[in-house]
Amino acid sequence: MSDVFKYFFEPESVTIIGASKTPGKAGNEILVNMLANGYAGKIYPVNPTGEEIMGFPSYRSVKEIPERVDLAVFIVPAEKTLEPLRECAGKKIPAAVILSAGYAEVDDQGKRLQEEILAVAKTSGMRIIGPNTSGLSSTLASLTTTLFPLGKIRRGPISYIAQTGNFATHTMKWIMTAENFGVARVAGLGNKIDVEDAEVLDYLGRDPETKAVLMYVEGFRQARRFFEVAREVTRKKPVIMLKGGRSKAGAERAFSHTASLAGDDRVFDAACRQTGIARVTRYFDLINVAKGIALQPLPPGRRVSSLAPSGALGVVVADACETLGLKMANHSEATLKRLREISASWVALSNPVDMSPITPTLGPVRAYKEVIELLLRDEGVDAVVPILLASPNIPAEQYAYLPELSSKYPHKPIYATFTGDKQSFDQARAFLEQRSIPVFIPLEHALETLQVLCRCREALIRGR
Amino acid sequence: MSDVFKYFFEPESVTIIGASKTPGKAGNEILVNMLANGYAGKIYPVNPTGEEIMGFPSYRSVKEIPERVDLAVFIVPAEKTLEPLRECAGKKIPAAVILSAGYAEVDDQGKRLQEEILAVAKTSGMRIIGPNTSGLSSTLASLTTTLFPLGKIRRGPISYIAQTGNFATHTMKWIMTAENFGVARVAGLGNKIDVEDAEVLDYLGRDPETKAVLMYVEGFRQARRFFEVAREVTRKKPVIMLKGGRSKAGAERAFSHTASLAGDDRVFDAACRQTGIARVTRYFDLINVAKGIALQPLPPGRRVSSLAPSGALGVVVADACETLGLKMANHSEATLKRLREISASWVALSNPVDMSPITPTLGPVRAYKEVIELLLRDEGVDAVVPILLASPNIPAEQYAYLPELSSKYPHKPIYATFTGDKQSFDQARAFLEQRSIPVFIPLEHALETLQVLCRCREALIRGR
Repeated sequence: MSDVFKYFFEPESVTIIGASKTPGKAGNEILVNMLANGYAGKIYPVNPTGEEIMGFPSYRSVKEIPERVDLAVFIVPAEKTLEPLRECAGKKIPAAVILSAGYAEVDDQGKRLQEEILAVAKTSGMRIIGPNTSGLSSTLASLTTTLFPLGKIRRGPISYIAQTGNFATHTMKWIMTAENFGVARVAGLGNKIDVEDAEVLDYLGRDPETKAVLMYVEGFRQARRFFEVAREVTRKKPVIMLKGGRSKAGAERAFSHTASLAGDDRVFDAACRQTGIARVTRYFDLINVAKGIALQPLPPGRRVSSLAPSGALGVVVADACETLGLKMANHSEATLKRLREISASWVALSNPVDMSPITPTLGPVRAYKEVIELLLRDEGVDAVVPILLASPNIPAEQYAYLPELSSKYPHKPIYATFTGDKQSFDQARAFLEQRSIPVFIPLEHALETLQVLCRCREALIRGR
Repeated sequence: MSDVFKYFFEPESVTIIGASKTPGKAGNEILVNMLANGYAGKIYPVNPTGEEIMGFPSYRSVKEIPERVDLAVFIVPAEKTLEPLRECAGKKIPAAVILSAGYAEVDDQGKRLQEEILAVAKTSGMRIIGPNTSGLSSTLASLTTTLFPLGKIRRGPISYIAQTGNFATHTMKWIMTAENFGVARVAGLGNKIDVEDAEVLDYLGRDPETKAVLMYVEGFRQARRFFEVAREVTRKKPVIMLKGGRSKAGAERAFSHTASLAGDDRVFDAACRQTGIARVTRYFDLINVAKGIALQPLPPGRRVSSLAPSGALGVVVADACETLGLKMANHSEATLKRLREISASWVALSNPVDMSPITPTLGPVRAYKEVIELLLRDEGVDAVVPILLASPNIPAEQYAYLPELSSKYPHKPIYATFTGDKQSFDQARAFLEQRSIPVFIPLEHALETLQVLCRCREALIRGR
């Protein structure tokens, strides 16, 4: 595979074909977004008027741009794509993103247009992402080609490939405003006339910025090729996939969305399992799982320990673990001995640890800190899921022991969850996630995420 | 069954045995909580010192209380319960809640004490809830016996029975601070030496304040009796249950929590289905489902319509519906005709409705309003789940059309969900839920809740 993706994700210069100085127009929004992200490369707006746009001189055509250009971004109507595209080819621009819609997803004329675009690409060697896409973001390059106002995109280790405009826009907005992890690369592939998932996944597999790849997919044109690549990538880093159209109703809907043929879901599922892809079934898993990977290590195994402010939540955790195929850890003699010392005498020790007989003597902060450290130290424990009680009496800073313990035991993930007061929870969650302790509500999301990441780790190990 | 529950849930006078004037002590917290809730009946604190407590004269013993007492609340140590309990019996107090722990859950001495308490109750006819419980709340009576600082408990149509102290305390705090629905009665039954679930469920079945009963249960002493009652109650109102200990690990944990024997879960599940109880499997379902019932009508059937700002979310909804056993509604000719008029010409109409070709012409507010009304009017549609786009450009008040449409079509539930900007979402959610439109995130929670309530409604109909 070529290195063309460095032009897509780390271009030193970009031309925006269809740039506009009119606020609210797509050709303006894209510039606003690029500037909000602080893109440091050269920007060459192309606009038939040749007027200045947001302080940049603009060019009447690509031919007029005096210097080399790495990436061309098209935001002109479909029927106005071909001419500037041929100019890009003439200028040997290696990479293009065509954002505009109105191609094969609309009518036969659009389909023919798409074929002509592809012919230009094939002849010139230019690679094309799109058309009909929300485009790319790449935080290392401070770059985004999306039209949706995202503001500064937070940098982090997660990369997404999404066969939908929604992900790189609305969902990314949610991640930027509601979550505390960041992204490396985001690729919306649109109609996929040239660049497909397999190539992007291969690149992200080699990309040192990317710790894990999360995908939303409705179908592949070249499924075999994709799974061949996936088998290699899952040996190196987690690949997580939500497949749209896994049900009959969903498949019909997917066909009308991206003309994807869903195929037999059992066959697809088997291919994922064989190639080490961890499938998930809910849209929000794409966020929860990313958070788990971004903030904590992968769980070294399936043995979970938990601690809860009440017995019932302990039962709920045990039920959820077993249902998910996780194991409640058997605590070592040393752990049990110490738990016996700090618990009330009549308590039946178990996992999850019931904190109600411990907190009255040690106080909620010391009690949790001591028990969590006990569990992290226990060789029979792979991950710790504390259920904490959010209360105005416990300011967020008092949870500082959690990031401290996480640094001290860097190979075992800590996923926190809470019950109690919402406002105190919001503060505690912000404090903790900014310090790399992910917080999940409802609590089952913590365990579901752990289970997905256990599957990812098992795929990594199998692949070695 | 007797009417003793009017003394538990609507007492005209309460004695608090073990009341204290020392802030932070349990016997003080309970008074603070009762006053915060504005309990309007008479309060008689009992304390050996006989001193004034928070403005109330206190009594050295129950015998000294000059007037009739409906409910006695015990917050004295286990070994100090019997004497005042006998005095309560002598005074013919009909109902008692024993909050204190230290009984059968601790040791044999506690178990013997429990038996003596039960003997006093049986002889005198006094009914007892507890011991070892977080107690009762009853918003109609502005009453709570919980020790946990809940503040004023919001009144609403949901009643809970929970075999755990956590629910009436920490989880209720979450409901009061993070949710926008209210409760009618909350009963934590503790060791259940006398009053059991069956009786409380029977009372709540007859209680006009209670629209639905949600339960957390680990086990029953008299399962057959309970299911007989449930069969009657589910004909009148929804009964939803989370069963702790449905897995082997959970069952072990439940035994050490409440000494409950979980039994064969398949047998339990069959009994629930036969008696119309809707089982749920996640702790948070007890909140989500309550929200759905409290704010909207039960869905008249399983045919769901949805509308989404992007194709992928539509696929996700269709997949989730089919997986849950819901149906994507087939829209009527009239609905399709109008959708064709307002959509771009090239759009393949389907369910969920893709809003992306409609909003550009009508604007996001009018577009959603018009399509949601179309769907509500369609006789083939039982429930509408709009996926909205939260944005700083759409102030919360602009969602006023949703409560308006809900009033106009009062028999079809509307459950909203969002993608986009978190802060705008928070404002929109508060605005909508305060106006009876429940908002669910992640979106799958909306569909899962609908499915549970479809099962509840089917049980109501079967029972007729």
